[in-house]
Amino acid sequence: MGDALRVTDLRGRNRAIAEGLLFTDQYQLTMAQLYHRLGMHEQPAQFEHFTRRSPDYGGHQAGYCVAAGLEPFLDWLTDTRPTEDDLAALRSQTAPTGAPRFDEGFLGWLAEHGAFESISVTAVPEGRVVHANVPMTVVRGPLAAGQILETALLNQLNFATLIATKASRIVEAARGRPVLEFGLRRAPGWGANAASRAALIGGAVGSSNVGVSHQLDLDPRGTHAHSMVQAFMALGEGELGAFRAYADVYPDECLLLVDTIDTLRSGVPNAITVFDELRTKGHEPVGIRLDSGDLAYLTIQAARMLDDAGFPDVTIVLSSGLDEIAMLQILAQIDTEAPRYGVEPASVVDRLAFGVGSKVATSDGQPYLDGVYKLTALRDAGGWKPAIKISESPTKTQNPGDKDVYRLYDERGRATADLLAVADEDIGSMEPLVLWHPILVGTRRQLAQREISGIEQLLEPAFAEGKPVQDRVPLEELRERHRRDVERLDPGVRRLVNPHEYHVSLTPELWQLKQELIAQARAA
Amino acid sequence: MGDALRVTDLRGRNRAIAEGLLFTDQYQLTMAQLYHRLGMHEQPAQFEHFTRRSPDYGGHQAGYCVAAGLEPFLDWLTDTRPTEDDLAALRSQTAPTGAPRFDEGFLGWLAEHGAFESISVTAVPEGRVVHANVPMTVVRGPLAAGQILETALLNQLNFATLIATKASRIVEAARGRPVLEFGLRRAPGWGANAASRAALIGGAVGSSNVGVSHQLDLDPRGTHAHSMVQAFMALGEGELGAFRAYADVYPDECLLLVDTIDTLRSGVPNAITVFDELRTKGHEPVGIRLDSGDLAYLTIQAARMLDDAGFPDVTIVLSSGLDEIAMLQILAQIDTEAPRYGVEPASVVDRLAFGVGSKVATSDGQPYLDGVYKLTALRDAGGWKPAIKISESPTKTQNPGDKDVYRLYDERGRATADLLAVADEDIGSMEPLVLWHPILVGTRRQLAQREISGIEQLLEPAFAEGKPVQDRVPLEELRERHRRDVERLDPGVRRLVNPHEYHVSLTPELWQLKQELIAQARAA
Repeated sequence: MGDALRVTDLRGRNRAIAEGLLFTDQYQLTMAQLYHRLGMHEQPAQFEHFTRRSPDYGGHQAGYCVAAGLEPFLDWLTDTRPTEDDLAALRSQTAPTGAPRFDEGFLGWLAEHGAFESISVTAVPEGRVVHANVPMTVVRGPLAAGQILETALLNQLNFATLIATKASRIVEAARGRPVLEFGLRRAPGWGANAASRAALIGGAVGSSNVGVSHQLDLDPRGTHAHSMVQAFMALGEGELGAFRAYADVYPDECLLLVDTIDTLRSGVPNAITVFDELRTKGHEPVGIRLDSGDLAYLTIQAARMLDDAGFPDVTIVLSSGLDEIAMLQILAQIDTEAPRYGVEPASVVDRLAFGVGSKVATSDGQPYLDGVYKLTALRDAGGWKPAIKISESPTKTQNPGDKDVYRLYDERGRATADLLAVADEDIGSMEPLVLWHPILVGTRRQLAQREISGIEQLLEPAFAEGKPVQDRVPLEELRERHRRDVERLDPGVRRLVNPHEYHVSLTPELWQLKQELIAQARAA
Repeated sequence: MGDALRVTDLRGRNRAIAEGLLFTDQYQLTMAQLYHRLGMHEQPAQFEHFTRRSPDYGGHQAGYCVAAGLEPFLDWLTDTRPTEDDLAALRSQTAPTGAPRFDEGFLGWLAEHGAFESISVTAVPEGRVVHANVPMTVVRGPLAAGQILETALLNQLNFATLIATKASRIVEAARGRPVLEFGLRRAPGWGANAASRAALIGGAVGSSNVGVSHQLDLDPRGTHAHSMVQAFMALGEGELGAFRAYADVYPDECLLLVDTIDTLRSGVPNAITVFDELRTKGHEPVGIRLDSGDLAYLTIQAARMLDDAGFPDVTIVLSSGLDEIAMLQILAQIDTEAPRYGVEPASVVDRLAFGVGSKVATSDGQPYLDGVYKLTALRDAGGWKPAIKISESPTKTQNPGDKDVYRLYDERGRATADLLAVADEDIGSMEPLVLWHPILVGTRRQLAQREISGIEQLLEPAFAEGKPVQDRVPLEELRERHRRDVERLDPGVRRLVNPHEYHVSLTPELWQLKQELIAQARAA
């Protein structure tokens, strides 16, 4: 036995070089060298990470996102530092003239200061609901270092947030029934592990991913595949032989996949035979799984057969290409069809569980998050000077400068708006609170302080002095944050199709600053 | 400085456990234990990996796939063996009764035989064109081991093949102009590195991914981002100051991003000013990059301005949400619009390069490959016994048994069909060769041997005796395989929208075997 990971793998490819400091885009390094050459590399800078819009899954856009990926990103930030191999690789790059692309002055600085001890990060905690155009992560530190880490930050946070959001929607569609994550086989390479973790943050109750489940102290989920039934068939023992063998080895966890041959004529009857045998021996069967065909119809029929056979409590797990919309449709069909077969719809739905795979692990319909990382301010002797990138598309013109971010709760305790303010504005004393639309001129909303039940700072300290500020958060706490935030959303914002737009607003002072900077940039 | 990778990370989460033997689905282990309990675990088995259909990008389905991911998968297979941590994790799992889920007999077997020394793999080499329902990877070995490795195989090969296929289509749309991969920031977590490698196999000429470029001995690509221009603006030096600084540090690699403020009124004129200054100093500028707005219109106008300023050879890199369809559209628009501005379309197209990011790294439109891994045969004293999984959907009923796979080339040297045969059939002596449609009864095609210019075995030995059979293949060779195979496709199959369906056929003997097994399974 040995270690499964190797720093330089056995066949000579250097894997570490692709997951450390050089897990970045080339232009971060060419810019960093430029800043170094001009003596700007240590200039204090502030960058913001935010999504421009919530994922739009082929026409039905999400009403919110779920923040995820911070812990793995902070791990990378904590552990990453330039290695000899990294520096040798950079030293080997040449300009077209044959001269080294990176000078020894820059490489020397990188060797000495290329870890991230001087970076500080504030962030919306993992598991919390976040909205488009609201900073999720704010990085402060030397300009060059803040630039180099951009790529890893975006990579880790964009993907995990995307998957946690997709999972949250799928959980929303599941009507309180358990959702299990089975996506590993078609998930994106090693990104699969981040996908499993994010799906669990977004509300999946378990995962088939053995390694990640053990990392997170969860029991991995799964029983058997079609191939087991096929093996018994090839050996002449058939589906019934396969089911008996399974029940024999796992008498108290017997959940059988019933669609290898014919669900209603072979799979369910064979399962019932084995369940009867199990019960005779003093064990209660757990369930069946349906993985193909018309899942609504087959569920109703299988439920009837199990009811009639005396197994009304056995779970029916549905899998095969499920996402939130497929689940909405299947459950709606059970609601309308079950009564025609004399079955109470609730009795069917209450025994369901959902296995979701490829579509959650890849966020099918919108497989990347439109998350960006923008320079918002540079600090000189006079304090933070705001920076802006304007755009012909107003939605792409960023909200500039050093800012605070608040969530406002209305009298019902529901989140009613996220408010971006110039740093240190006193929100609690403004009467009324005026919320400006970030783009539409003159569109604003007023809130009297008595209409507000709570004002909360969304960004919390996350990383300072080379390490995470907070202890590692147990998965259960991340899931609880998610549950609590989703409950405090307006039902219209939670809606899976055509949700209400959640308000993200600017204070009058921030709105004014933005207009001034746009005018200056246009004039220049 | 230190190593960027850690086996147990600094904050106590065991990362190795999630990337070694336990990078698998739970049911692989529960099935393996069942096989062990019944003494079936060492039974020689054969599994096949294939895609059920080529990716369908929102209505326009690919006509072919590009095999990728084999080398990383074989690395995993070579290096992975059960660790003490893996075994301890499995030992900690319990059934609802509190009893251990995995018995010591099984865990002892796993500790001793849980590496993959007894597995052999044949595969279609990386870079080659592959088609739906044709085995890409065939695994032979003990039933339990063949089962445990399924998840990692599917994960690594499905994702890389998907991305290489998307990249191949984007390269097809680029009319011979260079394609650069810039997807790292929105790629799926650590899967990003597999995506970069696969995009390079599929024809991208370079990548912004620094680490992967160095692994593959390529020069990483990229120059600067909007943030650099913003930083100079915040410091009062403006876009021109930023461009001058860049040209100063990189005089022979000066490629400027011109859309931070206003592409045609600020970016391009400032770039031309700096290019003039560079030329005065004896350097030739390299190019500009356009990352927003109407790329076709802006390209034509920028080309005119550069022509008029005496820079007709400067490259124009286009980026921002590009995929094969966006590129088709932009190029078509340049073809029709450029003449209205007195510009020759070819002179514009010939100076273009394309930066593609999120949409290639996630295969936007179809973010997972429908690749499956099926038991095809078990061996006993009488030889290989074919296994089958039937389905109500005929396209999901697999082609059973131990098989050979051939590609047939027609008189023009074009690939005309892939042919699946029962192992050891003598294809070369059949006159005529009869190709049966895999599903449609009675649909067949006949080829006289004189109409065939070549018959090629597609599967090659890849892994045996615990290690890869072949030396590591340089990237350039993988790319060359891709180029050669795509050139030998019929142009109709290469088409990006509504491609011809490539023929995948069965020999009469295999067709017969399939029907017999279906009938047997139905009867049982």
